[in-house]
Amino acid sequence: MAAVPHLMTLADLSGPQILRAVSHAYHLKQLSTPWLAPQLNSGKQPRLRMPSQSLFNKSIALLFSKRSTRTRVAAETASLLLGGRSLFLGKEDIQLGVNETPRDTARVIGGMCQGIFARVGDHSEIEELAKYSPVPVLNALSSLWHPTQVLADVLTLHEHAHLFDSSAPSPAPPVKAHTVPLPKLRPLTVAYVGDSANVLHDMLVTYPRLGHSLRIATPQKPVYQAPKPVWDRVKELKCDHKIWWGTNPREAVQGADVVVTDTWISMGQEAEYEQRVRDFAGFQVTEALCREGGAHADWKFMHCLPRKKHEVDDEVFYGPRSLVFPEADNRKWTIMAVFDLLFGKWDITSERHQKSEVF
Amino acid sequence: MAAVPHLMTLADLSGPQILRAVSHAYHLKQLSTPWLAPQLNSGKQPRLRMPSQSLFNKSIALLFSKRSTRTRVAAETASLLLGGRSLFLGKEDIQLGVNETPRDTARVIGGMCQGIFARVGDHSEIEELAKYSPVPVLNALSSLWHPTQVLADVLTLHEHAHLFDSSAPSPAPPVKAHTVPLPKLRPLTVAYVGDSANVLHDMLVTYPRLGHSLRIATPQKPVYQAPKPVWDRVKELKCDHKIWWGTNPREAVQGADVVVTDTWISMGQEAEYEQRVRDFAGFQVTEALCREGGAHADWKFMHCLPRKKHEVDDEVFYGPRSLVFPEADNRKWTIMAVFDLLFGKWDITSERHQKSEVF
Amino acid sequence: MAAVPHLMTLADLSGPQILRAVSHAYHLKQLSTPWLAPQLNSGKQPRLRMPSQSLFNKSIALLFSKRSTRTRVAAETASLLLGGRSLFLGKEDIQLGVNETPRDTARVIGGMCQGIFARVGDHSEIEELAKYSPVPVLNALSSLWHPTQVLADVLTLHEHAHLFDSSAPSPAPPVKAHTVPLPKLRPLTVAYVGDSANVLHDMLVTYPRLGHSLRIATPQKPVYQAPKPVWDRVKELKCDHKIWWGTNPREAVQGADVVVTDTWISMGQEAEYEQRVRDFAGFQVTEALCREGGAHADWKFMHCLPRKKHEVDDEVFYGPRSLVFPEADNRKWTIMAVFDLLFGKWDITSERHQKSEVF
Repeated sequence: MAAVPHLMTLADLSGPQILRAVSHAYHLKQLSTPWLAPQLNSGKQPRLRMPSQSLFNKSIALLFSKRSTRTRVAAETASLLLGGRSLFLGKEDIQLGVNETPRDTARVIGGMCQGIFARVGDHSEIEELAKYSPVPVLNALSSLWHPTQVLADVLTLHEHAHLFDSSAPSPAPPVKAHTVPLPKLRPLTVAYVGDSANVLHDMLVTYPRLGHSLRIATPQKPVYQAPKPVWDRVKELKCDHKIWWGTNPREAVQGADVVVTDTWISMGQEAEYEQRVRDFAGFQVTEALCREGGAHADWKFMHCLPRKKHEVDDEVFYGPRSLVFPEADNRKWTIMAVFDLLFGKWDITSERHQKSEVF
Repeated sequence: MAAVPHLMTLADLSGPQILRAVSHAYHLKQLSTPWLAPQLNSGKQPRLRMPSQSLFNKSIALLFSKRSTRTRVAAETASLLLGGRSLFLGKEDIQLGVNETPRDTARVIGGMCQGIFARVGDHSEIEELAKYSPVPVLNALSSLWHPTQVLADVLTLHEHAHLFDSSAPSPAPPVKAHTVPLPKLRPLTVAYVGDSANVLHDMLVTYPRLGHSLRIATPQKPVYQAPKPVWDRVKELKCDHKIWWGTNPREAVQGADVVVTDTWISMGQEAEYEQRVRDFAGFQVTEALCREGGAHADWKFMHCLPRKKHEVDDEVFYGPRSLVFPEADNRKWTIMAVFDLLFGKWDITSERHQKSEVF
Repeated sequence: MAAVPHLMTLADLSGPQILRAVSHAYHLKQLSTPWLAPQLNSGKQPRLRMPSQSLFNKSIALLFSKRSTRTRVAAETASLLLGGRSLFLGKEDIQLGVNETPRDTARVIGGMCQGIFARVGDHSEIEELAKYSPVPVLNALSSLWHPTQVLADVLTLHEHAHLFDSSAPSPAPPVKAHTVPLPKLRPLTVAYVGDSANVLHDMLVTYPRLGHSLRIATPQKPVYQAPKPVWDRVKELKCDHKIWWGTNPREAVQGADVVVTDTWISMGQEAEYEQRVRDFAGFQVTEALCREGGAHADWKFMHCLPRKKHEVDDEVFYGPRSLVFPEADNRKWTIMAVFDLLFGKWDITSERHQKSEVF
């Protein structure tokens, strides 16, 4: 019997494996979208191809010790399209480690479900689940990593590749009964202005390996730097040579094609609210900041949501630079791809890319 | 691209559109009921027609900031029969307007789901959701309106049309592999004795346009009168000429074919309990009240549940006049019809009524 | 119309009916398991037989006034395999008896769902639900009984029959496109060391009728003895002659083939924690206890989980004697069998056993 595959961070995958998952998401999205349109009353319904049904008859446990609307809704709707079902177990339903050990919970849930998508507190909790689960465990967000968010971001950038390259063709029109391949993306400069949290950590181990440069500004205090276990993976994967890290947001956005931020106050940090707002003075993403810092004229904006106004103003957030809503939509398609490859097929670490294998 | 259709109140539909939805519910009920019977072990299973599968592969978000067993269970079970899935997001899951703006929530949820069935507090909240949602929004109950409840009530009255008309035929026996049309209903006098709340408001804009008269008694204080936005719609739709409104329950039930009431103390009003119970003295629906008030000898009773004893006594509630349980069952079938027409087909405002179009 | 069947305790079934349900679970497990394996990418998928689809289009209400991960996940995943859907209604969703009477809730939920799987507090609450529900009610756990747990235990013992009988054949290899019959089990001595709670109560009315002997130790206080309604059923079913009941764990495990325990502190009893831990001094299941008490050399261990260390030590719990995880897995398959027979087919009390009837 093969070892059970898990996915804790994109550092667990190679660059080609990451692109394979993103490409798979792009194809699943194209196959699924026509199913979701209003049904016509004209009698004749178009003949549609079904996406992968690798979760048929299968259940995925969503073990969420923190609330997460986006991730949860993405998981539940994606499972349905794969023929299966997600089962939401919130903090009221499962108090991980309170009534029983994570070891016992992993074994019991993993004995009834075919995958565990877990949003825990400390990263060690999900490591413990993975250690004892008889089925794949996927990290839905931990103190250290947030792999599915960064997959959605990469897909969003590829889908908007034409915005970053005047010589690139516009997105191809959908061809009847076919899907088009993932658009190629030129090497980008991605700026991150904010706290060093799980989204950034997965960016650190991902973008450099896909050929992109990272420019990061966080406040100076040690609490806003990436923790050692993250840096260890960054260095191990030789990503550090493509990362610039400072404390000045203006410097960070220099030459940026994309500016990314995230919440400054994560769940559980509400007590530090005022201190953190002070520490992040000058970090709000605005037109002025990026103009003064010398971002690329066509810079785009991403944010994993939910968004607070102090992080980014309305002009940017709701304006034409913003990719935040396509980015949110893509949570669904990238989670669907990983559910298919990891939970449905135990095949997330394959680098084979032939259509017949994956779809 | 066509504008996204929404349904906030039955005032948004014409009389024929309302009857079309009710009639559609009646047909879906007939098609679905045989599927729900115990499966025989006799080998041969009957061949059954599937109801509309317009939600196949689709997810409907139930955005409920208040608890609602009946509405929720109706929505979840109806979605299943339509081939789709409802996703319950309670107040613990989504704190509308707390973590992010209703605008962002509407866009994000609407990007992953194919419909939003929302139970909010103040009616302005659902208006805000509808303004920004890329998919249809259906009001599951707001401070002003409760459209799906009144659809269930109208269906229940049509199903029991023979009780109100001695010359009417009894319900037709089910014909194999066919469905029978919605029974016609003679013009009724509908009395409402209670608080002016969302159920009554949708009654005000609905019954007069279907040919029925309303007789209403609420206590005299301003808080028990319909608010201006409701009266504006009532007058705009020329419903007021068929509405009698007083403060005496006995006067209200005069000539009534149907007596309706609702809770006196809605969620969030528990602090006013004692005051409200005093204000509604004499409003309990009983045999004596209706006899003394001169209701029709065969008057029937409806209540949207849950019921408290002070609103109606056991004799009426559990007695032969009570339609409350068929009425509760019909929540499922009318919600199924609206989900099909609004979420599945974006076609709730059509007045076309041919079978081939709707089923 | 036939009376609505319910299942409150295994005392409601005959011995052959119990074995039929267990045997059905064993077959459903064999049919379902291949569906749950990782999907191969090799192009050719094996042709698999579907398990019973008696819940197709149907919804089962999980009315849980107490948390229950295992039972809930088992029910939700089993419903999916039967073609239907379970709808979890927790204590936040339904406050049984608070907003409306159990009578009204039973009638309303039973009008929209095709079965009610209820985990209540006092056993009288589920009796009340069953009295008024138009669809079958299944006890998911009450103050008195826990029938689905004991079904899982019986299945687990039969599956491991070869461990108790050196002359028994090892489990038969799976035969392509066929299922193998439930292994026969020699008469066992089952020891129970712990509190007299719902699991034990269903053991009392079940094991003796299946030919097994029970040896029980509970602390001496009256609160740790089985209540009168339970003893009445035990005596009515003539189970008492196969039950030895004392206060000394060492005596109880004498000759035991299986040692079973359960939590000492059930939900709601946390206030009595220290008193109970004192009362159960010496009740921890360990190698030493069973050796000194003279258990069978090959004794096995079962526990319904979640487990606390004071009840059983790690050596036993995680060691080769432990059947606790197969036992937990079997919650799913036995619940699936009862859902199929009770909710899907209204046929739980049949004693017919022909394949064609059941599968």
